[in-house]
Amino acid sequence: MADKLIIFDTTLRDGEQSPGASMTREEKLRIARQLERLRVDVIEAGFAASSNGDFEAVRAIASAIRDSTVCSLARANDRDIARAAEALKGAGHARIHTFIATSPLHMEKKLRMSPDQVLEQARLSVRYARKLCDDVEFSPEDGYRSEPDFLCRVLEAVIQEGATTINIPDTVGYAVPELYGSFIAMLRERVPNSGKAVWSVHCHNDLGMAVANSLAGVKIGGARQIECTINGLGERAGNCSLEEVVMAVKTRRDYFGLDLGIDTTQIVPASRMVSQTTGFVVQPNKAVVGANAFAHASGIHQDGVLKARDTYEIMRAEDVGWSANKIVLGKLSGRNAFKQRLQELGIELESESDINAAFARFKDLADRKSEIFDEDIIALVGDESVTHQQEHFRLLGLRQQSETGERPHARVSFTVGDTEHQAESDGNGPVDASLKAIESRVNSGAELLLYSVNAITTGSTESQGEVTVRLQLGGRIVNGVGADPDIVVASAKAYLAALNKLHQNTERVAAQG
Amino acid sequence: MADKLIIFDTTLRDGEQSPGASMTREEKLRIARQLERLRVDVIEAGFAASSNGDFEAVRAIASAIRDSTVCSLARANDRDIARAAEALKGAGHARIHTFIATSPLHMEKKLRMSPDQVLEQARLSVRYARKLCDDVEFSPEDGYRSEPDFLCRVLEAVIQEGATTINIPDTVGYAVPELYGSFIAMLRERVPNSGKAVWSVHCHNDLGMAVANSLAGVKIGGARQIECTINGLGERAGNCSLEEVVMAVKTRRDYFGLDLGIDTTQIVPASRMVSQTTGFVVQPNKAVVGANAFAHASGIHQDGVLKARDTYEIMRAEDVGWSANKIVLGKLSGRNAFKQRLQELGIELESESDINAAFARFKDLADRKSEIFDEDIIALVGDESVTHQQEHFRLLGLRQQSETGERPHARVSFTVGDTEHQAESDGNGPVDASLKAIESRVNSGAELLLYSVNAITTGSTESQGEVTVRLQLGGRIVNGVGADPDIVVASAKAYLAALNKLHQNTERVAAQG
Repeated sequence: MADKLIIFDTTLRDGEQSPGASMTREEKLRIARQLERLRVDVIEAGFAASSNGDFEAVRAIASAIRDSTVCSLARANDRDIARAAEALKGAGHARIHTFIATSPLHMEKKLRMSPDQVLEQARLSVRYARKLCDDVEFSPEDGYRSEPDFLCRVLEAVIQEGATTINIPDTVGYAVPELYGSFIAMLRERVPNSGKAVWSVHCHNDLGMAVANSLAGVKIGGARQIECTINGLGERAGNCSLEEVVMAVKTRRDYFGLDLGIDTTQIVPASRMVSQTTGFVVQPNKAVVGANAFAHASGIHQDGVLKARDTYEIMRAEDVGWSANKIVLGKLSGRNAFKQRLQELGIELESESDINAAFARFKDLADRKSEIFDEDIIALVGDESVTHQQEHFRLLGLRQQSETGERPHARVSFTVGDTEHQAESDGNGPVDASLKAIESRVNSGAELLLYSVNAITTGSTESQGEVTVRLQLGGRIVNGVGADPDIVVASAKAYLAALNKLHQNTERVAAQG
Repeated sequence: MADKLIIFDTTLRDGEQSPGASMTREEKLRIARQLERLRVDVIEAGFAASSNGDFEAVRAIASAIRDSTVCSLARANDRDIARAAEALKGAGHARIHTFIATSPLHMEKKLRMSPDQVLEQARLSVRYARKLCDDVEFSPEDGYRSEPDFLCRVLEAVIQEGATTINIPDTVGYAVPELYGSFIAMLRERVPNSGKAVWSVHCHNDLGMAVANSLAGVKIGGARQIECTINGLGERAGNCSLEEVVMAVKTRRDYFGLDLGIDTTQIVPASRMVSQTTGFVVQPNKAVVGANAFAHASGIHQDGVLKARDTYEIMRAEDVGWSANKIVLGKLSGRNAFKQRLQELGIELESESDINAAFARFKDLADRKSEIFDEDIIALVGDESVTHQQEHFRLLGLRQQSETGERPHARVSFTVGDTEHQAESDGNGPVDASLKAIESRVNSGAELLLYSVNAITTGSTESQGEVTVRLQLGGRIVNGVGADPDIVVASAKAYLAALNKLHQNTERVAAQG
């Protein structure tokens, strides 16, 4: 039997750390359920000590997930580790992941600690974590740029204290495959008790090589866990893409010779859910999950594909979960059909009243859009009127018009807390006028960093528009997402959703990359 | 002195082959000029024999570009090669790039030729090409999946006939770095006259490893040319990204030890131009050119970055051409200021009347948008009223309105040829209503595959919306791009632009990946 490669997904921790990708507890829970359907081995659900919100999210995921191990990040101190253990109490399989920086630069400039102090803190932290949890992962932050002799001493010490997984991050995305693979191999050879832990790789994509570096860590270095995220979400250029690394190992099994537990047909649904939730678009020429990943345009290729599929295809679109859009429901579909489709999509709403709210949204949508696709349903359950949370700002109605030669105008009614407001404004376009109308009453002062729209479904001009609005205020960056067949309405919803996120005002500590 | 690494950009050939990325002659010319500013060594301008349009594009680029070598693709036959040579006549430095498939699968299923026939055709084609041009590149299509003994015979023969560059494509994106690098090394070792040619790599990104594979071809294999595209544009998951591979070689000069001719500060402008022209968005977490590539959100990281830049940054944003948006012009700016800014941006319009048309568009925009950024100017010169070409369909005016509880409505006036039309329609939203109004008169029957919007500039709700509409009709796929402060107007423009591209009806042959 071939070795098993452990897939450790950190979409909800390192991915969420990406500017604008922060998610609510319900959003994280929904993605965690999809990750379980994808059969990832470990779900890093968050960083419990970073904020009360993240603590609650980790706790909710720990209670809901049965098959995958649920993990929380923790800095190498007792308080962080105790918080992680507390949040993970309800988990079927729990893991505490603790870290401390070991590179000269990070120890000196960031931690202001001596190497001996770092070594001692790492040792004590792992010892404490093992008292609270059998499954403990240790990461030397910026490990790839650490001094090998010192790093070996740290790793030997934490394995001695009971660390079960040793993860070597390339925190700044500086590695190249050959060197990174050899680095892991060198560590495993030099650390005397290295055989007592599973070795893991964690690579960032700043030079476009996160996937190749991770695989070199496995092939050359002998690592048996890869840390990755859906769509390669993550700070800066992001993390290693789960979908790419998984399909590389499957497609080139002849070379890697490793088994995976992943259900690859859940890859595209997971990609869409993460993209819809965070508002981070996936570019068309993204491997595996991009809209063009399996398209062949040129005459020669089409001819080739017809003559023999293997001439240009090394993977099958069906295997990663691409399937034609299916019209699933319409105007006349009843509550039971709707509820059943939610179940088939793996969407579990918290209560009957949530299902009722979702069904009401569905009927409203079906009145205005003749064909309802799975993607519409996924967008709909993310709507605030369904999730009930943080609805400080809520859209009531909108009227707008524009005409060549005239100044576009919008009138928006919405609630702020319990108060109804109506505001109007001119603007350069109807979207600008609508957002200005809202801002004229709210006066948030937030700066608009990004505005983008994607059609939720394709193949028809009747698609819903899904708008992402990214706002920045006082150093915080949030994304708001809104969906509606009317793009101006979707924009107003997205703007209010972003204001709601700003209103939550959760302060938290963030972690290593 | 270190070896020089040749950067061969194929954005205008392999990139353009991506479904929906086809460009007009003017668009290709504008991008070629940017590639020259970027100082790429070779610009593959197109595939001259594939269509008259592509022939004209290659010819125009060959006449305009002085510093970079201009290359045309050609199948391994005399007609293709003669067309390529004809199109390249005006070039300062010209290259003919000819190819034929050498893998068992491709020879049998696609070419239906025996290996000996393929060998003979390769030999004769290179011989003929060398009569017409001193600089001849040869690619064995699907080379990486070819039988090594046979491939070596082919390569020895074409080098004997005078091929100056030998390029080994991983046509289906199946390679892994170690194996691909060793494959190139093996070929160079076994082909007796290998030292007489420069060796080149051409990798696709289906498994997310195009950059790492290309670099392994260089480091392990000894190749000295990399074929790549801006933003990794290309069929399926695209080609090796120019920006990633260039920054990897620069950032890890300690490892690669190679010199590059590239002016990296032109990378982000090139990325934006290609994205705006093709409508292919760049995802925020794309390395080097993504909006987040240099952003740091988490508390720890921000702290770290403040304490020492090196803790989290391995490249500087300025070095790849990221700079703050600058307000460059406004309502009161005159024609000279506008003309000067065009020059500074490296935009050369064909004639004074084009500059006048662009200036008129600029004044119109400045009336409706108080701050004009460089990106607005780049979008504006792409506008059809400036470029004058293929304006079969043209927007005259639009009036639309939507109100909660009512059905959105639009009235659009536009020309078809010389005739003015007015049409109106309801829709699910104002965009849907506008496109339906146009379609009700045009009856193109085209299928909408994709609809997306990006704000051209950030930092203000006054951004212009840039809409991309992708249409499919009878197997052809085209993108139309439209920009306007009013998103509904931008959508109508984009739809008409796509209809114009469909109307051109250029049939052409496409080439290997």
